Amino acid sequence: MSDGTLWFKAEDLDGLGRALFEAEGVPPGDAAIKSDCLVSANLRGVDSHGVARIPIYLKRLRSGLCKARPDIQVRRLTPVSALVDGDDGLGPVVSTRGMAECIAMAKQTGIGVVGIRRSTHFGMAAYYVLQALEADLVSFVFTNASRGMPAWGSIDPFLGTNPFAAGVPGGESGMPYLLDMATSVVARGKIRLAAQRGEAIPAGWALGPDGLPTTDGKEAMRGVVLPLAGYKGSGLAVLMDLLGGVMTGAAFAGLIRSAYNDWDAPQNTGHFFMCMRPDLFMPMAEFRMRMDVFVRRMKALRRTPDCAEILMPGEPETRKEAERRRTGIPLRPEPLAALAAEAEAGRITMPAGRAAPLG
Amino acid sequence: MSDGTLWFKAEDLDGLGRALFEAEGVPPGDAAIKSDCLVSANLRGVDSHGVARIPIYLKRLRSGLCKARPDIQVRRLTPVSALVDGDDGLGPVVSTRGMAECIAMAKQTGIGVVGIRRSTHFGMAAYYVLQALEADLVSFVFTNASRGMPAWGSIDPFLGTNPFAAGVPGGESGMPYLLDMATSVVARGKIRLAAQRGEAIPAGWALGPDGLPTTDGKEAMRGVVLPLAGYKGSGLAVLMDLLGGVMTGAAFAGLIRSAYNDWDAPQNTGHFFMCMRPDLFMPMAEFRMRMDVFVRRMKALRRTPDCAEILMPGEPETRKEAERRRTGIPLRPEPLAALAAEAEAGRITMPAGRAAPLG
Repeated sequence: MSDGTLWFKAEDLDGLGRALFEAEGVPPGDAAIKSDCLVSANLRGVDSHGVARIPIYLKRLRSGLCKARPDIQVRRLTPVSALVDGDDGLGPVVSTRGMAECIAMAKQTGIGVVGIRRSTHFGMAAYYVLQALEADLVSFVFTNASRGMPAWGSIDPFLGTNPFAAGVPGGESGMPYLLDMATSVVARGKIRLAAQRGEAIPAGWALGPDGLPTTDGKEAMRGVVLPLAGYKGSGLAVLMDLLGGVMTGAAFAGLIRSAYNDWDAPQNTGHFFMCMRPDLFMPMAEFRMRMDVFVRRMKALRRTPDCAEILMPGEPETRKEAERRRTGIPLRPEPLAALAAEAEAGRITMPAGRAAPLG
Repeated sequence: MSDGTLWFKAEDLDGLGRALFEAEGVPPGDAAIKSDCLVSANLRGVDSHGVARIPIYLKRLRSGLCKARPDIQVRRLTPVSALVDGDDGLGPVVSTRGMAECIAMAKQTGIGVVGIRRSTHFGMAAYYVLQALEADLVSFVFTNASRGMPAWGSIDPFLGTNPFAAGVPGGESGMPYLLDMATSVVARGKIRLAAQRGEAIPAGWALGPDGLPTTDGKEAMRGVVLPLAGYKGSGLAVLMDLLGGVMTGAAFAGLIRSAYNDWDAPQNTGHFFMCMRPDLFMPMAEFRMRMDVFVRRMKALRRTPDCAEILMPGEPETRKEAERRRTGIPLRPEPLAALAAEAEAGRITMPAGRAAPLG
């Protein structure tokens, strides 16, 4: 009773992604970053930000509104701040350059802040938090995004579903903190997937183009997704737009172009990264010990009947990645067909998928 | 048809607060900060963090668990980081010292981070964001707090309803951004007020001591308030505890003492402040112009039927303050009686209130 889903090895999808981006003129190193960012999202269960988006990124590259070979400028302004001009490059390529600079400053001075302008959709925010965690640094990763969500009190799309993402290195037990949450009730990508599948969405997720509540995924995609917790989610998304857009020099206030619908100009997405050493106030060993105490105490709490285990933010995604490295990454028929068409057009061998989980 | 509420001039309540704290041995300058922090909360409509809390703060001072004359140590560790040991002083006194240091660093280097340990309840987080805004700085103001909210999946109180607070200076129009939101569905102080008034609370706000949902304010005070938006609010509150507690050296993981219920040790509350110049990436005039564009564009959006005007985060509180500077601050009979009893015991003249709004 197959629904047409096929499972692929992560390495195979990664190879496909690299080949497709290289075929559009993206240098191999940059194509590897872009592909890794997408496959990493799939591995972590964030399929809305995974390889299913490859076709739209290729289309942006072909249009010239996203550049395969951008002239990315990284300018260190002070010992703690740097400005990146992404020159309309692929978001993960621009952002990985920016995060590397942010990490370097934090290592040197204890803290670093990077503003990024003229970027494009950077994919899963957690991808950059993971880079900071790899360097043993606390991080904030903020971005704005094309409008899809109203400011509180409004019915017009104005804010992106701007993610709030942050990380804190773990203790000796190796359990870090990683939060990557849309400031909307739900990630817009989930509504997009529902629309593609012709599925209904829960009430309270979105307004249709008429400003009235809807449970139709397609109507919701033409309307707006609602901010989480009313004015609170709206307030957080505004902050992401002020730091990621107003302050960096990128587009803001609903003027970030949609990668899907705007073909007259580059996106000019803005990002804001902050990295910080976790041992600013005590030796690293003491910090690590305290992180372990936190995790141990939290996991020992009494649970609700439907909760098998209390998890740290980021832990569900880490487990999903371990699982999908075994089972492979499932792809549904629609994105699969779009990827296969791209592969065929580029004379690239489509990797073999299996109708059941691997391993 | 009076319910016993009386209205007081802000200056009169401020004078009362100063006198009461001075009577407990708090130096005049520190008493002024503490009183101003509380009256400022009332003015902004955040009555849960206002002068109604004076009696519990006095009780903490008398117990010696909060010190009237702390030896607050501010240590600049690097050009961008400082550690504050609050020596169990009044939270607003400790935190105002910390924020001043944070502002000084940000002015000098572009950014500053302050960790604060051995503090006590610091009141309304917006109080410190306002200090940073006064200095034209972006800020994050984080704190942990005594346990009253479960981590997602748990029924035990573990996290505080740790506020997420941030500010961004405004443009020439003078409209800044100021978000100060509890990471719970609702501020715990609102449940406390409902409990004091014997009022019911909405479903979905809290679990009772048995771990089951309740709409009884008193039961909810014995139980836990729920995090906003499930794992998202829980994830934000965890971040506040990691940065405010784990990283600074303060108590954390449910071990911050309650100002109301724990009389065996100081609270050891922790705070984390970050200040940043908004003109890191462009001239200040350009930043201000862009902030104005943001506000203008947001306010021009189409509104839902029940929305008279789209407001910036912080704007409702600014308007409330303007209103209450005219009408005075309303105090209900219960907190009023407690304040009058404290005044009488200290031979301090209780200011005159009126049974109707002033002006």
